[in-house]
This record gives sequence, C-alpha cells and structure tokens, in this order.
Amino acid sequence: MTLEEKLAQIVGYWVDQGGEVVAPMAGEMATSTGYADATVHGIGHLTRVYGTRPVDPVERAAWLWGEQRRLKETTRLGIPALVHEEVLTGLAAWKAATFPTPLAWGAAFDPELVTEVGRSIGDSMRALGVHQGLAPVLDVIRDPRWGRVDECISEDPYLVGTIGTGYVRGLQSSGVHATLKHFVGYSASQSGRNHAPVHLGRRELADVLLPPFEMAVFDGGARSVMNSYAEIDGAPVGATPEYLSGILRELWGFDGVVVSDYFSVAFLHLMHAVAADRGEAAELALAAGIDVELPTGDAFLAPLADRIRSGATDVALVDRAVLRVLAQKEQLGLLDATFDDPPAVVDLDSLAHRSLARRLAEESIVLLTNDGVLPLVSPNGAGPRRIAVIGPNADSADALMGCYSFANHVLAHHPEVPIGLDIPTVLEALRGELVGDSDGADGASAGTEVVFAQGAEVEGAGAAGADGFAAAIDAARGADVAIVVVGDRAGLFGRGTVGEGNDVESLELPGVQRQLVEAVAQTGIPVVLVVLSGRPYAIGWAVEGPSAVAAVVQAFFPGEEGAGAIAGVLSGRVTPSGHLPVSLPRSAGAQPFSYLHPLLGGPSEVTSADSTPVLPFGHGLTYTTFERSGLEADAEVEAGGAFTATVRIRNLGDHAATDLVQLYAHDVHASVTRPLAQLLAYQRVLVQPGEEVVVRFEVPTTRLAFTDLAYQRVVEPGEVRLWVGPSCAEAETSATTCITGRPYRVTVADERMARSEVLAAAERLG
Amino acid sequence: MTLEEKLAQIVGYWVDQGGEVVAPMAGEMATSTGYADATVHGIGHLTRVYGTRPVDPVERAAWLWGEQRRLKETTRLGIPALVHEEVLTGLAAWKAATFPTPLAWGAAFDPELVTEVGRSIGDSMRALGVHQGLAPVLDVIRDPRWGRVDECISEDPYLVGTIGTGYVRGLQSSGVHATLKHFVGYSASQSGRNHAPVHLGRRELADVLLPPFEMAVFDGGARSVMNSYAEIDGAPVGATPEYLSGILRELWGFDGVVVSDYFSVAFLHLMHAVAADRGEAAELALAAGIDVELPTGDAFLAPLADRIRSGATDVALVDRAVLRVLAQKEQLGLLDATFDDPPAVVDLDSLAHRSLARRLAEESIVLLTNDGVLPLVSPNGAGPRRIAVIGPNADSADALMGCYSFANHVLAHHPEVPIGLDIPTVLEALRGELVGDSDGADGASAGTEVVFAQGAEVEGAGAAGADGFAAAIDAARGADVAIVVVGDRAGLFGRGTVGEGNDVESLELPGVQRQLVEAVAQTGIPVVLVVLSGRPYAIGWAVEGPSAVAAVVQAFFPGEEGAGAIAGVLSGRVTPSGHLPVSLPRSAGAQPFSYLHPLLGGPSEVTSADSTPVLPFGHGLTYTTFERSGLEADAEVEAGGAFTATVRIRNLGDHAATDLVQLYAHDVHASVTRPLAQLLAYQRVLVQPGEEVVVRFEVPTTRLAFTDLAYQRVVEPGEVRLWVGPSCAEAETSATTCITGRPYRVTVADERMARSEVLAAAERLG
Repeated sequence: MTLEEKLAQIVGYWVDQGGEVVAPMAGEMATSTGYADATVHGIGHLTRVYGTRPVDPVERAAWLWGEQRRLKETTRLGIPALVHEEVLTGLAAWKAATFPTPLAWGAAFDPELVTEVGRSIGDSMRALGVHQGLAPVLDVIRDPRWGRVDECISEDPYLVGTIGTGYVRGLQSSGVHATLKHFVGYSASQSGRNHAPVHLGRRELADVLLPPFEMAVFDGGARSVMNSYAEIDGAPVGATPEYLSGILRELWGFDGVVVSDYFSVAFLHLMHAVAADRGEAAELALAAGIDVELPTGDAFLAPLADRIRSGATDVALVDRAVLRVLAQKEQLGLLDATFDDPPAVVDLDSLAHRSLARRLAEESIVLLTNDGVLPLVSPNGAGPRRIAVIGPNADSADALMGCYSFANHVLAHHPEVPIGLDIPTVLEALRGELVGDSDGADGASAGTEVVFAQGAEVEGAGAAGADGFAAAIDAARGADVAIVVVGDRAGLFGRGTVGEGNDVESLELPGVQRQLVEAVAQTGIPVVLVVLSGRPYAIGWAVEGPSAVAAVVQAFFPGEEGAGAIAGVLSGRVTPSGHLPVSLPRSAGAQPFSYLHPLLGGPSEVTSADSTPVLPFGHGLTYTTFERSGLEADAEVEAGGAFTATVRIRNLGDHAATDLVQLYAHDVHASVTRPLAQLLAYQRVLVQPGEEVVVRFEVPTTRLAFTDLAYQRVVEPGEVRLWVGPSCAEAETSATTCITGRPYRVTVADERMARSEVLAAAERLG
Repeated sequence: MTLEEKLAQIVGYWVDQGGEVVAPMAGEMATSTGYADATVHGIGHLTRVYGTRPVDPVERAAWLWGEQRRLKETTRLGIPALVHEEVLTGLAAWKAATFPTPLAWGAAFDPELVTEVGRSIGDSMRALGVHQGLAPVLDVIRDPRWGRVDECISEDPYLVGTIGTGYVRGLQSSGVHATLKHFVGYSASQSGRNHAPVHLGRRELADVLLPPFEMAVFDGGARSVMNSYAEIDGAPVGATPEYLSGILRELWGFDGVVVSDYFSVAFLHLMHAVAADRGEAAELALAAGIDVELPTGDAFLAPLADRIRSGATDVALVDRAVLRVLAQKEQLGLLDATFDDPPAVVDLDSLAHRSLARRLAEESIVLLTNDGVLPLVSPNGAGPRRIAVIGPNADSADALMGCYSFANHVLAHHPEVPIGLDIPTVLEALRGELVGDSDGADGASAGTEVVFAQGAEVEGAGAAGADGFAAAIDAARGADVAIVVVGDRAGLFGRGTVGEGNDVESLELPGVQRQLVEAVAQTGIPVVLVVLSGRPYAIGWAVEGPSAVAAVVQAFFPGEEGAGAIAGVLSGRVTPSGHLPVSLPRSAGAQPFSYLHPLLGGPSEVTSADSTPVLPFGHGLTYTTFERSGLEADAEVEAGGAFTATVRIRNLGDHAATDLVQLYAHDVHASVTRPLAQLLAYQRVLVQPGEEVVVRFEVPTTRLAFTDLAYQRVVEPGEVRLWVGPSCAEAETSATTCITGRPYRVTVADERMARSEVLAAAERLG
C-alpha cells in the first residue's frame, strides 16, 4: 500500500459535510477536499451517510451500494468503505424508529429488553449497509449538570455495564459493530462542564469508570471503542497510551479498532495544546492507540503525511492502525462483499420497532410520588370527569426524544422537513387513553374531557410566560386533576436545555416551568407533575414539603412511543415499574454527588452541608405495595468464590405489578474506603396480587472487588452487609455474609468468568 | 523506656477536656483518664493549655511552669511536655492579639509582613511556654463552598507557598515550631464538603497541592507537619505511607515530627472504616508516618498497647515515633529546661501587635468596584454630610475575626466572658474616622453624622428581617451614602456561616442580606457594600449589571484592627492595595473552579455553562490608575535556568498608591495540559503620583515545572507567554520567552535552590 492508500483507510469522509454544521468547529475542521478526490485512494469510513441530513433511506441505500461498487472497482485496492452512524436512541436516520434515551434504559433495569432493542437497531443498520454504530455510551454519571447525562445509562457502574453489555450483544448479533464510548473519564468533568478537566485518581478510574467498559469488552465482545475527549489529571486520553493501549489492549486484550471521537485528534492541538500542530496531534493520537480519525482526516491526512515524509513520525504507527482497520473490514465481510444485490427495502419503523419502543418506554417511567391521585382510572373504569393538560412538553413530540435522536440532532436544522414518524404527544396519548378515539369505542374511560393549555415555554421567562400562566390556571379550574408536563428540550451546543454542550449552572427546571407548576397548584386542583427530561432536576419542592404536588412522574426521554407509555401509567393501564438510575439531586450546589459514596461523602457530623438527594438511586413506586423479607445469604464465602442470596417478595396489593428486586452491599471494613451502598444485583419480577415469590441471586465475590493500596484489584476478606429494599437508601430486609480466606487477586480471566454470569445471574423461583 | 513511657511520649493530654466540647466527637473521643494518671509516665504534648477555655495567661503560665517542673521531677525519665496551641490568626489564647485571617494574608500579597506577624506570634508563644503552633494552613483553595476557606491563603499555590513560608520563618525565628497543615488534599473535597472524598490524581497533587508544603519545608525549614483528614482516591492520608512517609520524608528528606489532626487516628476506624478498631487505626497511622496522636491518646494508648503486647503490632513503629518526638524536644531545648525562672509576664496584645495587625489588615482590604463614591473624604477634607451604616456586620466585633480566633473558636462557648481585647467595630471605626472622637479633634471630617441600623441578622430570614429592613431604609433616606456591612459570622460545626464544618450549598450571601442590600439600594441612595467574610460570595448582582451598587469592598476577616482599616479605606486615609487571592465566584453551581485551568476549564465552544468568575484572581482597585507597560523578558532561557523580566509601572493619578505587580505565564504547548494563566511572581510597589518605577523579577524556570506523562517533574522547552496586568484575566503588557534545550528534570536540590529565591526574588529598581 502507498502512504496515501494507508492514510485513506484510517480516516473518514463526511459525505454531507457541505450541509448543516452539527457540531462546533465542524465548519473549521471539515476538509475541503471534494468527495471524488478524497476517495481516490479508497476511504476508511463514510461518516453518517444517513445521519447528517434528512435523506430518503431507500434512495440513499441505492446511492451507497453504487459508491461501494465504485470503490471496489475504481480504486487500486478495491476496499469498500466502512459506514458508521449514530445509534444512541435508534438508528439516527430519517424515518427510523426513535427508542427511549439510554437514561430510560437505566430506569427500566432490563438488560434483556435492551438487548432486543440493540438487535432491532442492528438489523436496520445491516439492511442499510451500515457497519458500525457509535453507541453505547458507557460513561458512568458523576454530575447531573453535564449536558450529556441523557446519553448515559446510570450513576451505577454495574447497571451501566449490564445494560450496556446487553445493548452491545443485541446490536452485534445483527452482524454489525458497536462502539463503546467514551473511553474513558468523560462524564467526570469539572463542575459538569463538557470537555473540562477530569480530576480523578487511578482507583476511582478502575473501580467506577472502567467496569462498564470491561464488561462490554469481556462479556459483550464489543468490536470498537471511541476515545473520550477528556483529559484525566492533565493528560488527554487521546494522547496518552496509558488508557487506549495500556488498559484496553495490553491489560484487557482488546483487538478491535479504536476510533476517535469527532474532531478529537485536532483538539489535541486546538483545545488541549499538547501538540504544536495537527501533525503532532496525529502522531500522539496514533501512539496513544487511536486507529481511525473521525469524522474526517483533519490530522491523519496531509499533516500526518508531511511528518511521515519528513521522517518525524514512524510509518509503523500508521501500519498498525491500517492493519486493525483492514482486520475489522474483513470481520465485517467487507473485503469479500460485491454489493451486486440491491439493498432490501426495509421499514425502519415497523410494528416490531414500535412494540419494542413501547415496552421499553413503559418499563422506564418512574413514579416518584403519589398521594393516591394516580392511577386516574379506577379499577371499575371510572375516570376523571375533566382533566387539564398543561405545560410546554405536553403537546411536543420533540420533547420525547433525546439529544442524539435524528429529530433533535439533525432535523432541528431542517425545520421544513417533517419528522417522518408518527409520534403522538402526551396530550394526544392522554386523549386517546381517556377520551377514546373518534368512534368512542377504545377509550378506557369514555367521556373524560381533556383541556389543554401550554402555559409556558421550556426556556425563557418574561411576559409571555405570565400570559401563558393565566390560560393554564383557567384550564386547571374546573378540572378534577391537572397534568403538568414540563422538563427539557434536547439539543446541541446552546440549542435546547440538555444534550451535548448544554451543561447547566442550576438544576432548577429550565425557564419558568417551576413557577408554572406552582401557579397551577395554587388553584387547589390536584397536580400530577410529569417531568420529561434528559437529566434529573432538583424538584424537591414538588416531591416533599408544603408545596408538594399530588404525584410526580419522571420520564427520561421515552422515545416515539413514550407518550402512550406515560398516558398508560397515568391512567393505570400500565403499572409503573421504572426506578431512578440516578439520584434525584438536591441542588446544583450539592454536586458532584454519587450514591456510591463512603460515609464521609454523605451527611456527617463534620459538615453542615447536606448533599443527600431528594430521592435516592433505585427509588420508584408502583400501584401496589411490595413486602420484601427474609433475605438470606451464605454465611461464608471464600474470597474469589460466589455466594447465594434469596429474598421473598410479596405483593400486598390488588394490582399485578413488577418489582425491581435490588440487592445492595456494604463492605464494612476494607483497606480503602468503600461505598456505604453498592448495587450488587437486580432483577425485575412480576408478582400477582397476594402472591409471594422467591428471588435468588448468585453473586460472584469479584463484584465486590476493588483496587487496594498497591493498585491491585482484590476481593478482601471480611464482613459484608447485604440488604434488599425499595432503593439504595432503605434496608427492608438485611443479611450478612463473611468473605473468608486470604485477599483474592482478581485476574482478567476472573473478570471474564464473573462478568459472563451477569446477565443470567438472577433467577426467579416460583 | 517502658512501653507505657514510650506511648506517653507520642500522645497529647487535653488538660481542659472537661470543659466545653469544641469539636464533634470530642466528648466521645477524649479519654476519661485523669490528668495525674495520664502523666505518670510523662506526656508527649499538652493540648491547648491556653486555648481551650478562657484562662488568664499569667496564671496559666505559672501553673504550666509548675507542671513542667513536676514532670521533670516526679516522672522516671523527667521529660517535660511539649505544649501546642492553635495560632492561625494569632495565638489562640484569651487576651492575645487577633490578626487577620489567612485569606486576608493572601489578599495582602506581602510575605515579609506575614513573616513579621509570625515572629510576633512566636514571641508570644515562647513567653508563655508554648512550643508548637498548629499553623499555617497550606491547603490550596479549590472550592469556596468549603467552610475552612477562611483558614487558607489562596487558590494559587505559589502565593500560598510564599506567604505560608514567610509565616513559618517568622514563627520559627522565635524558637518555636510551626506545623504545616493539612498534609495533603484536604481542600479538594467533593463538592466542598468537609472531610468528603478527594478526587484527584498524582499530577494535580504534585503540581497544585504539594508545592506550598514543599516550599515551607525546603525554604521555611518547618519542623512539624499535620496530616489531612482527607482520603485521596479512596486512601485516607493518615493510613497511607505514600504521603507522610513516601513524599514528605523519603522524597523531601523531612526529619521533623508528624502530628495527627485532632481525632484523625480514631477516624480511620470510625469515619473511613479502613481499620476494624482503634488499635488497628493506631498501627496504620504509625506505619503511614503519624508520630503523635492529638489531641489525646484515644488510639495510641490502650488500644495500641494491647496490640503490641499481643504481638500484632511491632513496637519498632512506636520506637521510631518516640525517637522523633524526643529529637524535637531536644531541638526545642526541653530536655535541658529547668523551669526554675518564673514566666515573664508579657502583653499579648501590645502596641506592636496592634500595629502589625493594623498594617496587615490595611493591606488586605480589596476594593472590588467603585463608581467614584469612594473615598468618602475628598482631598480637601470634605466628607459626606450624613452616612447611614447598615447591616448585621456593621457593629459586630466577632464579624472581624476568623473561625480559629480565640473569640469565635472558644469564647463563643463562654458568652459570659468578655473578649479581653479592644476590638472596635466598623461602625465605631467609621464614627472615629468621620466624626472624630469625643473632643472633636481627631476626626478626618468633623461634622459627618453617622446613623446606624442593623437591618437584618447574618443568618435567618422571616419577619424580623423585614422589620429590620424598614429601619434600614429609614436610616438610608436622607443620608449621602449608605455603608452596608454584610457577610459571615465565623464559627464551627453549624454555629455560624463559615468556618470548620460550615460548608454551603449556595454561595449567595447568608440569610436575607442580599435582600437587605437591594432594599437599601432601592432608596436611590448610593450604596457602598462591605463584605466582611471568610469566603468569597457570589455577589455578581452587586458588582455588575443593573443592580450594581456604587462600590464594593471585600474584607476577609481582618482581625482586631480590621474595622479601622476598613474605615480608613472608605474615608481615603488608607489607599487600598489588597487583591483577590481567590476568584469571586459566579455561583455554587459553577464550582469547583480555579483560575489555574487549561483552555477547557473555562468558557469554550463546547459548553453552554460559563464558570467564569465575576471578578478574577488578582483583581483589586485603588484610588489611582496604574499604567503597566514595557514588559521585557530574556528572549531565551535554558530549561532549568532563570530569566529576567522587567516592567514599568506608572502612577497616572494623584494618590500615592501601592500596585501589586503580577507576572503571569502561559506555557503555550506542553506534554500535558497547562493553565492559561499561572502566577509566576509578584511584588507590591509604592508609586508616587506621576512616578514611574521599573520592577524586575528573576524567575527560575523551575517555577514553570510540572509533572509529565512519566510522572517526572520537568521544565520543558518551548514558548512561554508572559504578561503583567491588573489581574490574571487581563494582559496589559506582554512578552515571550523561549525555554531552550532539552527537558530539564527538577531535583530536590533544585527545589531548595529555586525556592530559596522566592521571597527575595522581586526587586524594585528606582
């Protein structure tokens, strides 16, 4: 291969780069080279062929097949391009299904269902000739001020790892490659500011941030990894061999391909200033372990070529990357593909997609508080006479989707283009749920009158807000209940209230939404607050105390079927089963906070400032009462072995409902500080009224492993307190197990063994 | 020595422990052993003999001499006790001078004056038979939410190091020992919560948190160090040999004594849970490098004795600590002391003390904004006809003193005891300044009428606040100007608004003080806001924008002479020269923040949240205008060498005034990310009206050293941008120097050499 042919294989080309700018500096960064010139020596990746602007998928597939044939036939080496797309909430392409955002996956605590979603996305990718999806995000949430929290799954690494691994398995089962991102540290940036310095040490890295990646590599078999933009303790990940090479490849044995986060190679020069120019940035990135520069070859083309020709950079660094890319293309079957068969036209938003989207949305809705106002429809079918639906997110389809949905990521720049999907709003779904459709036959509670007033915008304040308040108050008066739907509008870099680049200084609801809720509540009409958001907000005022509303429902962007899921939970057709995958914060001034804190990270005698969340990790109500009792665990287990824990779950109410059985642990004494609560295992279990089920967990002690003073990962002997309860904060039934023997040093082989039990570890006994 | 004799030497005894509890868990922790029994084998330290309750220093000294004689004569080994006291804002003893709080030392930027203060404190200690003072605090401020910010000097390590080293030199020049605390990491706790986990890596530790300690050890010759309560990345400092042994003793060669922060040995068991009991905690602490347990032997006595007798702990750990303590006592002359001469009665608050306290206070007052309302008295002596003095801190002596002052630390528990010092309040000082004393002769502006209304309390809200507002508004009406004095009340653990344990979730002024200021401002009378506080508050509303007040003055607890200093600045008798040693924060939601951030720690294209401070580090106005120009620096300097920079400072106004010449640097490209601004050198310089002076700095390049990817401390070649300006944020005159040669690895010997130039490095040329 010539140098040009090599470099062509380790960069992307952004076909639609002349279109809308979708990221900061995209204009500056994108190469000006025309497409034909850029592909004359072949090309490594085609960047977001479907996901840059609204193109008809069928037409674009036909074009793509032709281009692949052209690459095969007209370039010297005849190597097709690898096509990658964003797939965070579904394939980010026009008319493709939009699933719930990852934070909702976390709330559903259902890795199997996420596996199905992943497979569905993978099937759509494969049909369109897309080979690699830039998901899942495995960043462990450390600060809700960060704008990308909606792309993350949870603040618990085990939950992130199990859900994320499920997604990887599902996606890759379709024959395409997942991309673990962002390796590593991105979510822990200073004060939740995007790309800001990350302050952490090796132990926190190993014990909190790396485990989800470990699980997805060992147990998910993920084939690609994307670097984090972050600098950790002063060293940008993209320029530091320690992470992408030392940990990922040498320690873990990962043999896939590392792609750069968009523009991050040039950022080593422009943003981190650890390189004097793009050529040096390219060398640093390659040496650190980045194989492919995305979205385009800003640094890996001309600047790197110059350095190699001058002898400043060893071409061996390029060769290593090229070999990895070619190996990936071979695994994907690209080297043998002919693209002779035309693409199969597929429905990217079929009934099967809708069904999966609906199931995941339903499982993800979290009932935070309820004074009895919910469900709205009683068992005998009687519903409210009249409801007022209020709020800026009540009649918005965009409000149901995350920052990386095609609608909010791309279509926002094309306001003239229809969304291409049928996405009912919460208002429409509630009308369907409570009023019935036009023939009056399907409504759960025919005859309920639904009135609507927007009340306010998501963002901004001022006179318009106050005007809207009057209409909202009018709507509420005379209603039996007011459903006030507030929250976020996802977008990027200053457009919207959450999403990439939309970090916040306050965790109050954006704009005047809190005031709207309070104004409606002052009518005396019971208020059900529905928060449709991409991050948890400091809504303690609505949850507890004198101004608490009748019920609060938290929905993290639940996708195209989310409105129906919310309406179903409100009516009672759907029994809520979602739980908080992240603490409901007290305030921005209490951040950062994680439930995974040792004694001194919580309230204590030595600080007057209380960071205790308004509602704890794992919290979620439903329409019945569960009694969890009789937790039993093996009295002893050898360090490195596994122990069994069983617990009884009884449904004391008259609704069949799904409990999330949450097993927590506290390692009472250890050689380093350990969290007061750590999620050790979990299982969703459906329990009929009056029924009692026994849930058994097999827990490898390696799940309690941590990094000791010598920076070895060990399982230490000693007492471990275990409990099951409605959240991390309440032990409803407790037990103790004692880890015996000598400290057990965890090996990579153990990781593999322990992790592979993850998804199948919990077993329900009748 | 018997085991009992050894253990006795490595613990303290708290003579007045039966008195008020002054720290959380003091009741639980203090041993119940009576004094006579506890000292039968001798005793290592006597804990806060003068500083636990209000005792007459002269009487207590007589008692102490007798006790020392008793130890010499009645214990088998005849070793006197080492007596330690708190000395953070002066000797914390009844009737002793209270100097400005360390944050005010930072604002004064005057190491020589702090050296004098340290010597003065040391002289008082020596006179009273006190051997060791528990200061200075060298924690670099990382988050203003933390309650102990008032005990710290600055957010800049070089400023902390130079000021702190000055204090150590001064104190120790009196023949007593200083104690560097808290080694290390305490100030970087999560979300500013006291004792909460510290998230940081080795590089930040080495480049930000350790340098002040390094300077005070190498250049100050500090004889004692106190451990930090902190855990860093999961490992409590008090249980981790890496810090107190590895860095402090092995790397730096420190051969003094490490004392435990109060209760911190037992906290290894109770709070950090890295020890199963106090005996294990004792062993961990000794192994980590703690020699003496303070305040009493909760872990080092019976629990440790049991372990040693059972063979679980090697007595060699004890022997090592005992030898260090005995060496320290020998250095202090204690082993030869006879205590035959009676203590010399001394005035602990002499005119010399007052003069020093006044000078430091005057230099520390920071004029943040001024629309021309200040100074109140014009050059011809004309002052305002009538001023209103308003606010909860206007007529409070306590409000002038920090958390570790005897008044706020101890006397707060003895409300019946008078303060024992003459401490004028701001109101009294303003009356003296503007009205003149009773004979009318001394007033700068005879005839000014001063009216007073408190307006509100420091803490709390509600109706009382509103009532006070009316009186405040009445007072303001008819006045030419309203001086509104707000801020903090220092205290501990829930008493007060700042100080140890008083961490905050919001950086708004406590209570209803902002509303008070706004209510007074709405009268239309010009408002001069004086913030008398222990931390910087988010007072952006008063500094800029539509509700900005006429002038804002920041005084960090300025001590017993602080009111006069403030009154002098307001009247114009004192020309302000203080500068912010810490950024004036935007909000709690913007924390943590440090001016020492790389590009991505500040505003950028990739985040919507702006953490930019309201006013930057180094900002401070005065009553003239300075022009800084003509910065020149050596064009090249070899890595490891030193370069010269000169700058011209011209006083364009008609007031003689002191400029703080601030030299900043930015290492343009480096192998790790580097701050956009770094204080490289500073010098106060008095400039007469119309005069121009040239200030020259000799800067060792080792001041630009940092920890590279291989964790070596190096000076790297490359371009360094230099500038001088009114703060870190504005380059009024710029230059460039180029570091040449190969990367220079900094050695401990270099440190010593480079650091010893610190205090004398800046030289004024006429």
